[in-house]
Formats: sequence, C-alpha cells, structure tokens
Amino acid sequence: RVDWDAAAAEKGGYDTFMEKEINEQPKAVEDTLLGRTDAEGRLTLDELRIDPQELKDVQKIIVLACGTAAYAGTVAKYAIEHWCRIPVEVELAHEFRYRDPIIDETTLVVSISQSGETMDTLMAVRYAKEQGARTLSICNTNGATIPRESDAVLYLHAGPEIAVASTKAFLAMIAAAYLLGLYLAQLRGQLFQGQISDILADLHKIPGKIQTILDGSEQIKQLARDMKDTPSVLFLGRHVGYPVAMEGALKLKELAYIHAEGFAAGELKHGPIALIDEGQPVFVVVPSPRGRDSLHSKVVSNIQEVRARGAKTITVAEEGDDSVRQFSESVFRVPETQPLLMPLLTTVPLQIFACALASEKGFDVDQPRNLAKSVTVE
Amino acid sequence: RVDWDAAAAEKGGYDTFMEKEINEQPKAVEDTLLGRTDAEGRLTLDELRIDPQELKDVQKIIVLACGTAAYAGTVAKYAIEHWCRIPVEVELAHEFRYRDPIIDETTLVVSISQSGETMDTLMAVRYAKEQGARTLSICNTNGATIPRESDAVLYLHAGPEIAVASTKAFLAMIAAAYLLGLYLAQLRGQLFQGQISDILADLHKIPGKIQTILDGSEQIKQLARDMKDTPSVLFLGRHVGYPVAMEGALKLKELAYIHAEGFAAGELKHGPIALIDEGQPVFVVVPSPRGRDSLHSKVVSNIQEVRARGAKTITVAEEGDDSVRQFSESVFRVPETQPLLMPLLTTVPLQIFACALASEKGFDVDQPRNLAKSVTVE
Repeated sequence: RVDWDAAAAEKGGYDTFMEKEINEQPKAVEDTLLGRTDAEGRLTLDELRIDPQELKDVQKIIVLACGTAAYAGTVAKYAIEHWCRIPVEVELAHEFRYRDPIIDETTLVVSISQSGETMDTLMAVRYAKEQGARTLSICNTNGATIPRESDAVLYLHAGPEIAVASTKAFLAMIAAAYLLGLYLAQLRGQLFQGQISDILADLHKIPGKIQTILDGSEQIKQLARDMKDTPSVLFLGRHVGYPVAMEGALKLKELAYIHAEGFAAGELKHGPIALIDEGQPVFVVVPSPRGRDSLHSKVVSNIQEVRARGAKTITVAEEGDDSVRQFSESVFRVPETQPLLMPLLTTVPLQIFACALASEKGFDVDQPRNLAKSVTVE
Repeated sequence: RVDWDAAAAEKGGYDTFMEKEINEQPKAVEDTLLGRTDAEGRLTLDELRIDPQELKDVQKIIVLACGTAAYAGTVAKYAIEHWCRIPVEVELAHEFRYRDPIIDETTLVVSISQSGETMDTLMAVRYAKEQGARTLSICNTNGATIPRESDAVLYLHAGPEIAVASTKAFLAMIAAAYLLGLYLAQLRGQLFQGQISDILADLHKIPGKIQTILDGSEQIKQLARDMKDTPSVLFLGRHVGYPVAMEGALKLKELAYIHAEGFAAGELKHGPIALIDEGQPVFVVVPSPRGRDSLHSKVVSNIQEVRARGAKTITVAEEGDDSVRQFSESVFRVPETQPLLMPLLTTVPLQIFACALASEKGFDVDQPRNLAKSVTVE
C-alpha cells in the first residue's frame, strides 16, 4: 500500500504519468517561456559559447531530430523562415549522417532532443561540428551530452517527462523553437522589437488556452471510448497543422498500436485518398480562417472530398470557425491565437485522444511495448 | 469482341495497363537515357532557355513535386548532393506555396511532374519564378504547361502512362534526376568527365537488370497471392532506400486500399516499432553491402529488431548479399549496381507486389478508386 500511495503521489493523482504530463502542459510551456529576457527586455539564450556575430552571419539552418522532436522541428521551420527569412531544412538525424550534407561555418545546426542523449542526434551534431557548423541544442535535460557539446543551448525547463511517449516536452520544444526564431529575428534585426513583444505576449497567453482545452477534455475522451475498436485513423493538416497531424498519428501508433498515418492534406489527391472508405475516421487539423489567404478554404474542401467518399471526419478547429461544423462528425475547439502558434493548441486534443483510446484498449500508456524513453543506441 | 481485341492489343497482351507499364520499364529507362550527349560526348538538356553560367552559379536546388514524384525527388536529393555538392531540398508543392520559402536568382527550382500539368506543382513553379528563381522541369509530356513555362527541360521520353498509379514514369523520373545531377556536375566541373562516363555506363546497364527482375517476378506474385488478406504492410529503407520504401507503401495504398506505411528505418526506435506485432509483414529495402560504411549493417540490425518482435520480414537485397537470408521469410534479389543507382532496381519488386496483391483482391489496378491520373485541380 505504501508503494501504491507513493506511486499515486508521484503521478499527482492521475492514473498514469502520461495523463499527468498532458495536464502539466500549461505549466511546462509557461516554464519554457519564463525568464527569457535580460534587463533591457531583450531575448537571451541559456548558454551562448559563440560570438553573436556568427549567429548573425548564419545563411542556413538545419534542424536535426528524430521522431516527435522532428515534428517540433517542422513547426520551427515554418516559424523561423517566416520571422527570420533564413532557409530551414529539417533532417532526420539518422539519415543526415549517412548522406553527404552540405554544411559550412555559415550553417547553424539546431538539434532537438528531450533527453539530450539521443544517440542518432548526438552523432549527427558531432558530424556537423566537424564540418564547421555552429550548433545549438534545444533540450530538456540540464547538462546532458548534446547541450554540453553545443555552442548554444535553449533548455525547455519542462520538468522530467516519465511517460515514454512525449507530450509536454513536445509542446515545450515548439515553444522553445518560437523563442529561438524570435531571438534570431531580434539579433538580425528582422523583426521590430514591438513585433517580437507582441508575439511574446501572445505566447504568454498560450498556457491559459491549453488549460481551456484540458478543461473540455471529456468530449475527446468520450469519442476515444466510442472509437475503441477502430482499426485505423488518418490525420490531415496543412502548413503548421501538417506536423501536428504527423504527431497525432505517431501518438496513436506508439500507444494504441493501430495504423495511424498523418499526411499533408495536399497529398490526398496524389494517392492516399484511395484509402478512404465508408466509415474511415479522419482527423483534420483546420487552420485558422484568419490565417493566410486560401489555406482554410483548401482544408475545408479536403474535408468535403474525404466525406464524399464516406470518411467520418473529426475536426480540430478554432473557436468560432463555423464553416467546419456541417462537415464534421465531431468538432474539437481550440481558442484563437496567431496562426503560426496554433500547434501549441491543436496538438492537445490529439494527445488526449491517443491516451484515452489506448487506456480504453487496456494498454499501458506510460510504457508502450517495444519503446524506450531515450534512444541512446543507434 | 472488336472492342475487347482492341483493348487487349492496346495492353500489349497484358491484362492491365499497369502490368504492361511495369514490363515496359527497361525500355522506358533506356529511352530516358537515350541521346543525351552532344557531338563532343557532353551531356545536354532537351531545352535550355537560360545562360549555362546561371546554372553554374546556382547555390541551392529546391525540388517541387507531389506524391510519387516527390519520392523521385528525394532520390534526386541524395544523388545531386553527392555528385554536385549543391544543397537540395525536396518540398511538397502544395505546402511550398503556403509557407514563406526563401528563394532568389541563385535558387534552381526543379519540378517533377509526369503530366506537366499537376496544378499544385505548376502554381508552385510560377510562384518560384516570380521570386526570381531559375526553373527546370522534369516531365513526360512534350509541350505541357510546366515545361513550357520553365527555363530548362528534361523530358522523360518514357511513352504514355495510362495506369493511374505511376510505375515506368517513376523510374524514368529517377533516371532523369541522375542525368540532371551528372549534367550539373559536368557544368560545374564537380566530377571528372571519366567519372561521369563511368556512371553513365552503369546507368545504361540498368534496363537489362530491370529485365532480370521482371523475368523473376513469379516469386513476388506468389508472395502477393499468399498475402492477399494481410490488413497492413510496413516498408523500411535507409538512404536512397528510404524513398523506395515510401513508394512501395504508396503503391499498396493506391491499389490495394490497405494500410501501408513507409519509414526511414532509423525512425523505428523513435516510435513506429510499437506497431510491430506477431506476424506483421515488413518489407525492408536493404542497401548494398558494398556501399558506405555501416549502412548495410544498420539495416540488418533493424531487421533483427523487428523480427525479435514477431515481424514477418521480406527483404529486397542485392545478389550475393547472404547476410539477410537468415533474417528473411522471403528475399527478392536485385542485380548489383552503384549504391546510388539502386532505386531503379529495388523499386521494381515492390511495384510487382502491389499490382499482384491488388489484382488478387479483385481490384481494378488501372483505375483505383478516388484517384485521377493527372491532378489538374488544387
């Protein structure tokens, strides 16, 4: 009994670490954002062992990561290219090492690893350093190997993540990627200080908005219970919703062991739409109707296409976006924010869904089969 | 009866256009390679409307494509980066347009589209031109819109492709991508003329090697018949085998409507390995043991990992690679070639498998549900 009580206490009253960590996300993102400015109100990194001038001279960014962290890297790509006008490539660390990447001292290699010990990522960072690149680590574990060996560090400060499938670290990685983008934009004079402050202000409102989603999680859990026996689920997204769709699918694979695949919604017509059959569940991450030109309407037309072929569509959409209601079996609402920041919100219902569906199937969501928390072998 | 005879004649004695086109691949690749050198024995393009000096000054290549063509683009990335030392990014055309890509007059945008009319790709090419990029089209259809609007053109000359799911055009796109890489390497003096001639000589041997695979296709068709009722198949590959795995999965989705997903083999431990259960079929595209350092041994260890968890592994491996036999339920052999050129061979068994499995299920492989041959709407 003592053991049980201790375990329950450790889990903060939740049945599983995963639920605890999903519910810690408002605090995790808040802590990632905390204390990032100096006395003059300018953004800073945690550790900087290179001349800022070298960061100013960067011509290209390569994000190195594996699994979930690579999806956070894809969000980083959209944000950094938009804010800083620096080209960003996202590379799977285990592929990067075995091709012939073109790197020099004007390349900034940004690695993303929760543990800071991911062997594939570490080896890729070492390779990039040998080629002369500058290296920056986004990591949750103070003093881990990758940040120790990097020229600059941005720690997540998200607290220990125990469940094997990442949740709060993923959101914290995305928040850190935004901070990095804003830091580089500030350093290179690409955004005005007022613009940076406005985005930061919106970022600081995110934790409360995540809490709103968590408070409404019963609707999602109910859907997961209803869908317990589904053999497969597809996920669609565009722009920053694309990596969110990929992450939603990966969570279901990792936890519920069902075939779940994410796609850029624009790929549908180029092949995957053949998969759509009567009753196939399809989650669609809907971009803000306040975002750029026709992105929202294109996703709405994707929804209509899959519905016309019998799909059961479940949408994750912004509060007040009424256009999706008539095309959705279920709509999960997220509060409004800047379109680029939406992944911090739209990811959350997908995490809750995967966790609830796997629990309903009777699986151990904290220790999924075959997986280790930190992949320290190649 | 006249109609039936006419249709049979059109299909060259095969039951379906897809089988016909799979079997036309030796000729398709041969025709793509044909007549590519001038009187001095130097590689040329079909159309060149820009100063070659501008191609010499290119700093970055962006490949724009959708679906299968994007996998050909990924093979192009590996080859061009290796031969030319120019960084190459592969972008889904429908995503590219809606983010903020960084492009200028030192960017070469290479579009790949069988029809030359793919709307997403056309719009992305136009956008890139507006931003000042040089554009080059790889296309199968003479005088189509995309090549007409591009600064340079490399036609596939693969003959009309009727089946909706691409086979011979995919191989021809890869062959064309190699030609482009060698052309740029020649123009920029990155390879010696003798090296280029050696690679071209190996390329010219590929059609005969494809024929060898086709002649042994009964083994693959038998496996497809045995696996008729499998609910899902996974595909793994590394390096140039990664896009081959993706294409193998896409073909099964398109034709057999079963859940088939391709992964970079290094991603396994970062999530997807949770999917592996007793009897799960997994195709593994094995790199040449004569290729770079440890790539082959890493894939062999991936095979052991999935087998330890109950997977039924089917390998596509080079003639003489005996290391995989003990870890494979079935081994499909491909003749030896340069490691970078292997996709022209390793793709073929996966095409035959998808076509045979879908036929066995009674589906129309030429006209899969929900799909159109040329996606001329957005």
